[in-house]
Amino acid sequence: MTARYLQEEHHIFRNAFRKFLEKEAYPFYEEWEKDRMIPRYFWTKMGENGFLCPWVDERYGGFNTDFAYSVVINEELERVGASMIGIGLHSDIVVPYLHEYGTEDQKQKWLPKCISGEIITAIAMTEPGAGSDLAGIKTTAIKKGDHYIVNGQKTFITNGIHADLIVVVCKTDPKAKHKGISLVVVERDTPGFSRGRKLDKVGLHAQDTAELIFEDVKIPVENLIGIEGKGFYYLMEKLQQERLIVAISAQIAAETMLKLTLKYVKDREAFGKSISKFQHIQFRLAEMATEIEIGRTFLDDLIEQHIAGKDVVTKVSMAKWWLTDMAKKVAAECMHLHGGYGYMEEYEIARRYRDTPVSAIYAGTNEIMKTIIAKNMGL
Amino acid sequence: MTARYLQEEHHIFRNAFRKFLEKEAYPFYEEWEKDRMIPRYFWTKMGENGFLCPWVDERYGGFNTDFAYSVVINEELERVGASMIGIGLHSDIVVPYLHEYGTEDQKQKWLPKCISGEIITAIAMTEPGAGSDLAGIKTTAIKKGDHYIVNGQKTFITNGIHADLIVVVCKTDPKAKHKGISLVVVERDTPGFSRGRKLDKVGLHAQDTAELIFEDVKIPVENLIGIEGKGFYYLMEKLQQERLIVAISAQIAAETMLKLTLKYVKDREAFGKSISKFQHIQFRLAEMATEIEIGRTFLDDLIEQHIAGKDVVTKVSMAKWWLTDMAKKVAAECMHLHGGYGYMEEYEIARRYRDTPVSAIYAGTNEIMKTIIAKNMGL
Amino acid sequence: MTARYLQEEHHIFRNAFRKFLEKEAYPFYEEWEKDRMIPRYFWTKMGENGFLCPWVDERYGGFNTDFAYSVVINEELERVGASMIGIGLHSDIVVPYLHEYGTEDQKQKWLPKCISGEIITAIAMTEPGAGSDLAGIKTTAIKKGDHYIVNGQKTFITNGIHADLIVVVCKTDPKAKHKGISLVVVERDTPGFSRGRKLDKVGLHAQDTAELIFEDVKIPVENLIGIEGKGFYYLMEKLQQERLIVAISAQIAAETMLKLTLKYVKDREAFGKSISKFQHIQFRLAEMATEIEIGRTFLDDLIEQHIAGKDVVTKVSMAKWWLTDMAKKVAAECMHLHGGYGYMEEYEIARRYRDTPVSAIYAGTNEIMKTIIAKNMGL
Amino acid sequence: MTARYLQEEHHIFRNAFRKFLEKEAYPFYEEWEKDRMIPRYFWTKMGENGFLCPWVDERYGGFNTDFAYSVVINEELERVGASMIGIGLHSDIVVPYLHEYGTEDQKQKWLPKCISGEIITAIAMTEPGAGSDLAGIKTTAIKKGDHYIVNGQKTFITNGIHADLIVVVCKTDPKAKHKGISLVVVERDTPGFSRGRKLDKVGLHAQDTAELIFEDVKIPVENLIGIEGKGFYYLMEKLQQERLIVAISAQIAAETMLKLTLKYVKDREAFGKSISKFQHIQFRLAEMATEIEIGRTFLDDLIEQHIAGKDVVTKVSMAKWWLTDMAKKVAAECMHLHGGYGYMEEYEIARRYRDTPVSAIYAGTNEIMKTIIAKNMGL
Repeated sequence: MTARYLQEEHHIFRNAFRKFLEKEAYPFYEEWEKDRMIPRYFWTKMGENGFLCPWVDERYGGFNTDFAYSVVINEELERVGASMIGIGLHSDIVVPYLHEYGTEDQKQKWLPKCISGEIITAIAMTEPGAGSDLAGIKTTAIKKGDHYIVNGQKTFITNGIHADLIVVVCKTDPKAKHKGISLVVVERDTPGFSRGRKLDKVGLHAQDTAELIFEDVKIPVENLIGIEGKGFYYLMEKLQQERLIVAISAQIAAETMLKLTLKYVKDREAFGKSISKFQHIQFRLAEMATEIEIGRTFLDDLIEQHIAGKDVVTKVSMAKWWLTDMAKKVAAECMHLHGGYGYMEEYEIARRYRDTPVSAIYAGTNEIMKTIIAKNMGL
Repeated sequence: MTARYLQEEHHIFRNAFRKFLEKEAYPFYEEWEKDRMIPRYFWTKMGENGFLCPWVDERYGGFNTDFAYSVVINEELERVGASMIGIGLHSDIVVPYLHEYGTEDQKQKWLPKCISGEIITAIAMTEPGAGSDLAGIKTTAIKKGDHYIVNGQKTFITNGIHADLIVVVCKTDPKAKHKGISLVVVERDTPGFSRGRKLDKVGLHAQDTAELIFEDVKIPVENLIGIEGKGFYYLMEKLQQERLIVAISAQIAAETMLKLTLKYVKDREAFGKSISKFQHIQFRLAEMATEIEIGRTFLDDLIEQHIAGKDVVTKVSMAKWWLTDMAKKVAAECMHLHGGYGYMEEYEIARRYRDTPVSAIYAGTNEIMKTIIAKNMGL
Repeated sequence: MTARYLQEEHHIFRNAFRKFLEKEAYPFYEEWEKDRMIPRYFWTKMGENGFLCPWVDERYGGFNTDFAYSVVINEELERVGASMIGIGLHSDIVVPYLHEYGTEDQKQKWLPKCISGEIITAIAMTEPGAGSDLAGIKTTAIKKGDHYIVNGQKTFITNGIHADLIVVVCKTDPKAKHKGISLVVVERDTPGFSRGRKLDKVGLHAQDTAELIFEDVKIPVENLIGIEGKGFYYLMEKLQQERLIVAISAQIAAETMLKLTLKYVKDREAFGKSISKFQHIQFRLAEMATEIEIGRTFLDDLIEQHIAGKDVVTKVSMAKWWLTDMAKKVAAECMHLHGGYGYMEEYEIARRYRDTPVSAIYAGTNEIMKTIIAKNMGL
Repeated sequence: MTARYLQEEHHIFRNAFRKFLEKEAYPFYEEWEKDRMIPRYFWTKMGENGFLCPWVDERYGGFNTDFAYSVVINEELERVGASMIGIGLHSDIVVPYLHEYGTEDQKQKWLPKCISGEIITAIAMTEPGAGSDLAGIKTTAIKKGDHYIVNGQKTFITNGIHADLIVVVCKTDPKAKHKGISLVVVERDTPGFSRGRKLDKVGLHAQDTAELIFEDVKIPVENLIGIEGKGFYYLMEKLQQERLIVAISAQIAAETMLKLTLKYVKDREAFGKSISKFQHIQFRLAEMATEIEIGRTFLDDLIEQHIAGKDVVTKVSMAKWWLTDMAKKVAAECMHLHGGYGYMEEYEIARRYRDTPVSAIYAGTNEIMKTIIAKNMGL
């Protein structure tokens, strides 16, 4: 069955995008994982084919597509491998800040290149000492005349190595809490801006995650996004789509892992029969299939509501924690059902097991999600 | 939010039915639980007001309503208390056998009274030695001239004490397995038919569950439902709606228990503050709220597909096991969150805790559900 | 295998006590459950045979036995049924307060009758508005000359109906928190002392639980236990043994339920074979057997350390929450494995399912246990 | 607290061994993980210091130590890192076959070098097509005169690259099932014996796991271990100690991960306080601490019984599945509690998360353990 928000045009698009990925991504993905980097040229190819930020307005070079296209892109990228999430982050998480809160000048300057892949973006939120607690960030952007001087350190930044344009979450008023937060853009090669180590992670090997260091980085006031002190509100607004995309990826990961495992247990024999004939294994698979089906129904319904512009904060928080937790359980279970082979890197389930757990952490930990839900329940 | 299959007319109907229940059921429910019986007059009142089998064709006295009305009725009955399920069983599980597979004569004879509440129905499937394994039933209906002679024993029969008309699952060909199964009707006061004990259950106290005994019960061949030997297929067909109704009840039970618990924790204080302020309690409630929301979405989607006449066997099986398991977890958790009060019968959660676990057993155990899912996954 | 702390003498004693129970308790237990009361004469018989408080010093009529005898008694009582816990409460939880903190006069006056069963004791801690939070209790005992005037209300009091002597936890200094708490004895028939309703509980039907009301109850100052203001410390000291006994009961309950279920699944057939041959059922039973074995080992080790006088606060807290949680899971699982029969009161598992959940609440909720553990971990 | 089977001498030995590891292993472990190999010289150093197979009889160069020394060694090795398990495999799993079932000639020839580290051993059980199902192995050793000709392929062989002496599980009677299984020794450099790829695993990076290929490998009949056709019985006998060692490692892994996490949460701040102050985190840690304590008690009791020579098959099976499952849950939970840092390889928890899941697979999957338990329960 297919979601109600998907029309014929989206299915055609999915097929086209899949063919693109089968040619340009699937055959190389393992290599990218080893190289710890999705090569720049792949980004450019994505851009050339209109697969980056297609939703952007036509006058900046986009196609003005609805969010269902973004869903299709994020789903198909995740099917290749979880490290592709950096691309979705660029298209559907970072660029929206520029598009919605940016000035006309900013948009004309940056958006076309975001669409072509010439500019890869990142958003720098987390700091070594502040993860979920945004109000506690220490990075500052202090106004001096017509410049901001940015100082601070960020970590766990997706696209951290590739990024040409970084939306930095900082305090323009260091004494204030939420109300002191602003978003500013730091571009590649700005003096004082440097990248720390590419971080060595348990999974998402091809996704470049890095520390970013800002030492007296001087940027023009024109690089402020939106209004000073409104950063926290922008984040709260846009985090919903970010979390939704994480939920979508978790769902696809779970679906993929179940599929891999179904194939494995049907092929594998023990004690003279296919191991898919053991009741215990059948029940575990039936249980996972159920949770995946239920998750999919919830997710599709949520996407539909998000497209319709409804307030989905509570439901997005629910989807984010539940689906990422579910994916983690599915990963552990499916790896186990592969027996010794599941522990070998040549089997895709091994990589998926390493990739999955971070989804419960980033974009707001699952604990933060529960706090939001509880708050919205009036607790 | 409200399900897509619910129209304005259904909401109006729900309000009317709720008012009826607030007057006729809620104030007496506790008493009925103590009496271990929903009184016959309540059935009649339901009938008088058109709340029994409203979906039946108009020429038999029904209103030809769509299944969404049945959903509303089952939901609102469960909200009163889980023992009301016998009424839904009558309206949406037993009577459909008569309506779909019965002869015109049978329908004219029985349906009007099923609608008025003069006839209460039951379906006798389970036997002391055969529960989930239908092919193993031992009750026989042996044709002798223009009669069947029914012999056997049934147990766990909902509405077993009230029932005026029992659809008995039996073997007309005792040597065959599935293909020997037929459905015959045994009516109250037929010689040789007697009721065993009213069973003393952990919960569902007001719902009359009984053993039924058939000793050389002579019934006319006209009491055969449909075609001889087709009983198993009729059951497989109709069990989907039965399981769907069990799933609906489990969902409502979970929603009700969460609501009760939210109220309790907000009111209750300990260590100088409302216990709803403890992070642990907030997280448990947020987790339950999430699973309930996800369950609701899945269920509503499934009801919509069932109304549309789609093949929902796999999804019904998923909904049945997952929602009843979820309701059991919610029951245990919510009782626990009530502290010592949750263990006291005067708190509704106590009754709900006793009522809930049987839902994982009846209408096909959750293990049977997983077997069906696994089979449909090609395992 | 048998625990190291059990010697030949304890085994002999266990056999004797079992024979006593087989004659005096097992045949009547179901009736007691229906009557909602263990009859007074059973207490007296226990006393006559030396089964109440055998650990008390010989000069008060006891046998000076070690705690292993108490373990044996509590285990065998739980095997009869969970409602017997009121007897263990008397022998091993309430009387120890008198024995350890009482004056010589108090001991001579009360202990011999506690041993004979002429006096049944209770401890009144919980109040309608204060459960786990002892510092928040509102019952007061205000000194006036050579009397205390007791005012307040207690609830969920085990042995509340039978009790002749109640150790009341109250504030002698209402303005203080922990340091204002004292223990005083209120005896049956003291003017102003009355019993509220016998509470109707989900389980433990034969155990009489009640509300107690104190309205200007005048008791002599001689009824103070120990030193004024030290009540909280006495409770903290003695609660360890109370929680240990709850843990012992939970373990026995789990062992009993597994045994019942093993018997059931071996006898029950479906699909042409014993249901004990289904892999799923085998795995569930193997999993439960494992947790029960692990729990038993931990418990026996803990009892040994308690007997040796070691500080067992952390481990008792661990045993209490883990074993009662385990017993709850075992109860739900075992009931489910009984199919429809598990829901029928004639099967013991039905009663056990109703009895079990309160163990996670009383004697300090499992959340309180985790708070204690966390504190002792330096968190 | 310390286990009863540990005497003063074992504590002294532990301290000495720890000092050795702090000098010779801890500082290099990360490098070994990157090199995907524990260097040969470390084995030799272990041997020089008497840390390999100290339990072997003195006349072959051992120290005749009791199993408690082996426990200490395995525990301390696991504390360094899970990849050290190959050393325990050599000392306590493979060499015991030689020692117990070998001829005097075999023992004199091989044991001294196993003790010195000149010979590293492996046992080759698993095949690409047969894991848990030993009776299904395909490798053959066909007797031809005074030789066996070995043919077949093995996989997932721990120490597969280093091994100088491999105990090969094969069929000397390919038509028989269990009774056709024998153990033969294949030594390094025997013609026809080759090593396949070093397998790239999710974890245990420094442990060399490989495929082994046997093509017409000619070995003298003197290389048969014990009696032809008795291999299965030898394995059943010795697998208990293997599983016990896996359980010990899982326990140490869990203890280590909890310790790492306690330190992390105490140091880490968010929302203006140490995250160890959040109730949710405290409860999760208290829960893990409980399961770890309970696991430790069960394990120590089991080791004691194993040392005493009792039949521990059921309990070893219980320990193996429960402790490895517990360690997996602890790994996932502890990684999560580290937030984003837990996903970074520079934090030890990241490595532990990758290392842990295989323990539920090897030495008999946890499903096999449950099958054994169920069988011993009479199911």
